[in-house]
Amino acid sequence: MRTSRLEAFSDGVLAVIITIMVLELHVPHHATLSALGDSAHGFLTYLLSFVYIGIYWNNHHHMFHIVEHVDGLVLWANLDLLFWLSLLPFTTKWLDGTGFALVPTVLYGLNLLLAAIAYYLLQQAIFRTEGSDSRLRRALGNDLKGKLSPVLYILGIGLSFVSTWLGVAVFSVVAVIWLVPDRRVERYVADQERDVL
Amino acid sequence: MRTSRLEAFSDGVLAVIITIMVLELHVPHHATLSALGDSAHGFLTYLLSFVYIGIYWNNHHHMFHIVEHVDGLVLWANLDLLFWLSLLPFTTKWLDGTGFALVPTVLYGLNLLLAAIAYYLLQQAIFRTEGSDSRLRRALGNDLKGKLSPVLYILGIGLSFVSTWLGVAVFSVVAVIWLVPDRRVERYVADQERDVL
Amino acid sequence: MRTSRLEAFSDGVLAVIITIMVLELHVPHHATLSALGDSAHGFLTYLLSFVYIGIYWNNHHHMFHIVEHVDGLVLWANLDLLFWLSLLPFTTKWLDGTGFALVPTVLYGLNLLLAAIAYYLLQQAIFRTEGSDSRLRRALGNDLKGKLSPVLYILGIGLSFVSTWLGVAVFSVVAVIWLVPDRRVERYVADQERDVL
Amino acid sequence: MRTSRLEAFSDGVLAVIITIMVLELHVPHHATLSALGDSAHGFLTYLLSFVYIGIYWNNHHHMFHIVEHVDGLVLWANLDLLFWLSLLPFTTKWLDGTGFALVPTVLYGLNLLLAAIAYYLLQQAIFRTEGSDSRLRRALGNDLKGKLSPVLYILGIGLSFVSTWLGVAVFSVVAVIWLVPDRRVERYVADQERDVL
Repeated sequence: MRTSRLEAFSDGVLAVIITIMVLELHVPHHATLSALGDSAHGFLTYLLSFVYIGIYWNNHHHMFHIVEHVDGLVLWANLDLLFWLSLLPFTTKWLDGTGFALVPTVLYGLNLLLAAIAYYLLQQAIFRTEGSDSRLRRALGNDLKGKLSPVLYILGIGLSFVSTWLGVAVFSVVAVIWLVPDRRVERYVADQERDVL
Repeated sequence: MRTSRLEAFSDGVLAVIITIMVLELHVPHHATLSALGDSAHGFLTYLLSFVYIGIYWNNHHHMFHIVEHVDGLVLWANLDLLFWLSLLPFTTKWLDGTGFALVPTVLYGLNLLLAAIAYYLLQQAIFRTEGSDSRLRRALGNDLKGKLSPVLYILGIGLSFVSTWLGVAVFSVVAVIWLVPDRRVERYVADQERDVL
Repeated sequence: MRTSRLEAFSDGVLAVIITIMVLELHVPHHATLSALGDSAHGFLTYLLSFVYIGIYWNNHHHMFHIVEHVDGLVLWANLDLLFWLSLLPFTTKWLDGTGFALVPTVLYGLNLLLAAIAYYLLQQAIFRTEGSDSRLRRALGNDLKGKLSPVLYILGIGLSFVSTWLGVAVFSVVAVIWLVPDRRVERYVADQERDVL
Repeated sequence: MRTSRLEAFSDGVLAVIITIMVLELHVPHHATLSALGDSAHGFLTYLLSFVYIGIYWNNHHHMFHIVEHVDGLVLWANLDLLFWLSLLPFTTKWLDGTGFALVPTVLYGLNLLLAAIAYYLLQQAIFRTEGSDSRLRRALGNDLKGKLSPVLYILGIGLSFVSTWLGVAVFSVVAVIWLVPDRRVERYVADQERDVL
């Protein structure tokens, strides 16, 4: 099975998720700066979730760049990832609408954690397809970021019980860590091409 | 006529359907665990419909993998399938909003049944294009799952008159049956490649 | 300029248009058959607009199948077509919400007419790119359907002043005329291939 | 890294943005011409934002037509552009809902300005990838339109303090300037092909 349609469908789903979140942003009731200020809250939450979907698209793009074949299990692992990401507009809206209350903040962190686990399972499904000589496995190396993220999500969820702002701060730090472009796959591809020459 | 644009358009429609359903999920009014619990109902219905769209995308992907040419009739049979699937956000919302009342449960089952019939008609349209030596027909074999599903949908609709939870349970069982990856097409492709060697 | 991205973008826009219309379908307030009956109105309007977007996608697909190069004018003519089609969810919602009142019915007809004109202009823009030996022009032939449709839209708009149901009936007849697959391009491609052999 | 998925994802996001704005168009409460007239306001704002997204898609399409490789920085610069464009439905809705009040008009202008800056940064990121012999840089030439637009946006924002209609008029003039198809890239490609022959 080729990867092109899986990529096209994932692009479509991620494009819709990243865009419909703006429908949840409520326009201020009054045409004043202070009314706009009250929306700043929602704007920042929107930005955080936008960056997260952007990160997942980016990593997904890099990952499937070196994957050649997929089987049924990979298709379902991919749908599982899309499912958790598709809930992000919902959890973002609740987080924002309640002004960072405890339960919504914990739920938002859980959503991020479950998406990270789904991404990990998707990687495992690809490893299985590729066998012992998996190109992706070699490209990822020790995958420090991938291992650190779930730990930080759990830390963020825990700190939310102290202060939800602290929790959201931790979730934002994870986003910033990933914002630094992941050069592992790029480097691997470049290395491979050099080896061939 | 090549299949690429049909696949791209179907990917787009299915990506939008699977994602906009989350817009129908109402965020809880209070920031409490019990308020979230009240939304569990909607969450499960969303999950069921998400899985169904995922199944259709998955099967659609497998089917068009071995189809090479399409004609006008296939294009329209495909749009017919997309039409019934596009109604799923509507019937899901009604099912969820009424707490699994009888008429909405029956309508949800009918929607699934009509989508299954549309998928069957799409297969027939492809067989017609491919002629007597249809690759798809050979790949599908006796198509047990395809024949069983409509029977189970009708059973689920009937059982809804006893208990709507029973009806929804049957619809969920069909989803689980399909969740097991359909290896027929994959096996057929693998067999063909072995025969060539 | 290649046509692939123009087709991909158009596929995306048409996929979103055809799917978001379902968000406008209001779920019945009561979980009864008669409440569902009250929604039948909206269902039929949704079906009509779905078929129209399907027709445009189908014809767009056929048209760009034999077009090889596009220039800036074609890109803008295509966006003009997408603009008028993007208004269809709006005019459909008004038509449905008012129970086929006069002004909304006339506006719906105008929307269809303006989309048809935009499609005609898109064809002209392609003819201009292809020069005197336009493959598309030869494939289209006398284009009876294309010439008849605007006349019927105007007739439908006129008849709406007698009865809006009559107007909607005419708009539905045009849809049915187009539902018959357009074999001109398919035949042309088949002829060309035969000539080569 | 190939550009195809970046283009596909951008096409998807822009297709969703351009289409969901119609969901914000409120249907008139009464089925009369004068009620429709009250919506004319929203229609014109929708048209303006539609044209802007169309312009960005058009320029994006032309730009990536001559770009061959992208790196992580280009992916993120592209997401930055999509972020600002994704806010357009929000700022459009506020602009329209308040009848061109001062703060919303200034915010709309700022949104356009920030999108223009993001587009400029995306160009710079591509130049960096392509090195000193950038094909895109040569194709763009002195980029008069690109340099003029931010100046006009700032002028429009300034004039909004005199009259918001004047501000919106300036924003519309910029759109008209860009509507004239950008032939630079097309000419460059044509020139290159002639040089080869």
